[in-house]
Amino acid sequence: MYDLLIQHVDVLQIANGAPTILPRHDLAITDRRISAIAPAISPGLAREVIDGEGHLAIPGLINSHAHTAMSLFRGVAEDVPIEEWFNRFIWPLETNLTPEDVYWGTLLGLAEMIEAGVTCVADHYFATDAIAQAVQESGMRALLAWTLFSGADEDTQLNSARRFTEQWHGTAGDRIRVWMGPHSPYTCTPSFLSRIARTARELGVGIHIHLAETAGQVSQSIATYGRSPVMVAYDAGLFAGPALAAHVAHVSPEDIAVLATHGVAVAVTPKTEMKLGIGVAPVTTMRAAGVTVALGSDGAASNNTYDVLESARLLALLEKLRTGDARVMPIGTVLELATVAGAQALHWEGIGVLQPGARADLALIQYATAHTQPVHDPAAALLYSSQPADVRTVIVDGRVLMRDRVLLTIDKPRVLREVVARIERLTQYQLDKRIAVYPEARTDA
Amino acid sequence: MYDLLIQHVDVLQIANGAPTILPRHDLAITDRRISAIAPAISPGLAREVIDGEGHLAIPGLINSHAHTAMSLFRGVAEDVPIEEWFNRFIWPLETNLTPEDVYWGTLLGLAEMIEAGVTCVADHYFATDAIAQAVQESGMRALLAWTLFSGADEDTQLNSARRFTEQWHGTAGDRIRVWMGPHSPYTCTPSFLSRIARTARELGVGIHIHLAETAGQVSQSIATYGRSPVMVAYDAGLFAGPALAAHVAHVSPEDIAVLATHGVAVAVTPKTEMKLGIGVAPVTTMRAAGVTVALGSDGAASNNTYDVLESARLLALLEKLRTGDARVMPIGTVLELATVAGAQALHWEGIGVLQPGARADLALIQYATAHTQPVHDPAAALLYSSQPADVRTVIVDGRVLMRDRVLLTIDKPRVLREVVARIERLTQYQLDKRIAVYPEARTDA
Repeated sequence: MYDLLIQHVDVLQIANGAPTILPRHDLAITDRRISAIAPAISPGLAREVIDGEGHLAIPGLINSHAHTAMSLFRGVAEDVPIEEWFNRFIWPLETNLTPEDVYWGTLLGLAEMIEAGVTCVADHYFATDAIAQAVQESGMRALLAWTLFSGADEDTQLNSARRFTEQWHGTAGDRIRVWMGPHSPYTCTPSFLSRIARTARELGVGIHIHLAETAGQVSQSIATYGRSPVMVAYDAGLFAGPALAAHVAHVSPEDIAVLATHGVAVAVTPKTEMKLGIGVAPVTTMRAAGVTVALGSDGAASNNTYDVLESARLLALLEKLRTGDARVMPIGTVLELATVAGAQALHWEGIGVLQPGARADLALIQYATAHTQPVHDPAAALLYSSQPADVRTVIVDGRVLMRDRVLLTIDKPRVLREVVARIERLTQYQLDKRIAVYPEARTDA
Repeated sequence: MYDLLIQHVDVLQIANGAPTILPRHDLAITDRRISAIAPAISPGLAREVIDGEGHLAIPGLINSHAHTAMSLFRGVAEDVPIEEWFNRFIWPLETNLTPEDVYWGTLLGLAEMIEAGVTCVADHYFATDAIAQAVQESGMRALLAWTLFSGADEDTQLNSARRFTEQWHGTAGDRIRVWMGPHSPYTCTPSFLSRIARTARELGVGIHIHLAETAGQVSQSIATYGRSPVMVAYDAGLFAGPALAAHVAHVSPEDIAVLATHGVAVAVTPKTEMKLGIGVAPVTTMRAAGVTVALGSDGAASNNTYDVLESARLLALLEKLRTGDARVMPIGTVLELATVAGAQALHWEGIGVLQPGARADLALIQYATAHTQPVHDPAAALLYSSQPADVRTVIVDGRVLMRDRVLLTIDKPRVLREVVARIERLTQYQLDKRIAVYPEARTDA
């Protein structure tokens, strides 16, 4: 007996950087897992049947670094350098946020992700109880981190993050997990980083942090500590357990070796990194050295979308341009970064693949469009031609979250109303109030 | 009396690199032109009314370099270098094309463009009578060029291109114009280029050509002629009248000065240029020197889409990354490249802007989506958040070509059927037959 049977769908499988298509197969889901993939499964055994004809089934995309609730600030700070982005716009504006704002902003971002075929997100933000609530209700899969800064009361923050972790880690049928989220070595002191690392080890969870986003951060770190941001994080013990570092654009060979040796995964968010002009991680070099590289969207205030396939496409195009070699970062490899490598980066087994036994996290993408036909290569159509609106149906943990473009767990009209109603208050600038101060005074300008 | 009135729409105007939004205005169209834009126009005076509430009206996007019928080969040659792309895949496969194939492939590409808000295309291909037929029927605006190569009978080709120009230039109410289309200096001899230039001057039309796509082409040109591709084109007289050069990725300061002095516009197609790893024109430098830079999509066999906003987004992101300055290529500037500069590049007055007196070429983009809300900045939402599916209604020369996502001039189901029926025959490889040979033996590898 199957809970759900998807019939006549092309199934995308990716292994060792190569995509394979199982043409016109059936895919059965039982007890939140994929139970069978075969050319013909009897529909009589299924409680519910979805016709997948003319669709490509893909593993749900994994967004390995996001600030989901920043959907609220999409477009507030355009064409400005990072220090202005933080100090003039984002950190003042974020003082306006209430937990209820974060709840609605998270639901908005999750709605966009589901509509774009994303089924799991590594989120890094504050008011995380509101975020966990939104994730629980939406049916999404998420690895949450409470963003921690030095400056405000470190004890209170750390106790709150500990309480949050104990309360939410492994809940919602293990759809919600929690790691510790120090913001970065430029906003946390080494001693605070060490305390956070110890807390993570005590709780048996990992670390999600921003590292080496700009060349200026690296030179400032070396000037202050005599060590790069990667080495400061390492020295603080952040790499003793599972660790996920976002951006990591500016690294030395020594940094890369440390990341590889300690299994630290890197989440690249190419749109943000290009848009802020801060640089993009040397992905091909990192992967050659054995670093797991995954893909993220960052927050919508810098990235403007939560579209992981856009991140994948950008990264592939950029690596081909940088190396001058069209063979670099082929389609299968970059799709792997958006799926399999995401699961590795989040230390989340059983997602990112379509095979019997895996969690039933998947998306169905339609083919019958003017912009994807003719389909000589389904994986190329997915990466280089499709748009998020082609995602028709999304399933997480065996539950249908969107069917034929209709969200089933999020009341989108209500979310849009709630968000629009908040805009005027949320965009009151209070320049004397900031949640933190970006310390870099154009040292890399 | 108005032929069409669009009510309550936000109107995007772009001037000097800065976007302005006229909120909730009415836009009237009379005799194929915009006749009025005002806060409130009486609907009693209009034959037809469209409710634009919740939409942004933008100037129709201009695709300044495309091979529209190459939609047929979308995805056939992925992750391969340019010489393999040409010699192993594209030029052998193109020998399979009949004029009827080109007709259906063009309609497919035009359908995709209309669905993406593109209202004008500079096309460069062969079997141009079939292309002109498709453009005429579709209602699109197009500048067509018959691709010319040395090798085959040059007299026959030139006579055919002349006959095509005389037959089609200025037809369909001036929606169709024709320029001469030498392929490139690496596939045309200098003497053939000179003959083409003379013919263009006799006919009073411009030149559309590929120039300096790769570093290898430049070094080969210098080895053969002692001159760069830009200078070879200049020497041949191609810049004596209107001229549009595609790609132009590898240029010297002298090349840039010649382009600027002679008013040669450059069409950049960043997705193709990144994907093939061949390099992207130094756009910021070129613009500073006075060169008009516009945006194109190239053919779908390299670019995979005909989405001009994607080209715009990629170029802005890339220029910010390359310069390390987030302020470079701001939203208004890159939107200008996709509209105003496109009109300049094609020497087509009265398009690319929304103002009274201009041709009524425009698109209405919806706002009420999870991926664009909240809209703090409509121009940012357009460039960095929207997807082609958000384009709801498209008007060219005052005629509605798409309304609420339904194409009115192209029978899309039939086009998709015709294209799919041709695939098997079109992908028969005949490696001994090529329409030309790419001469570069990895000199830039």
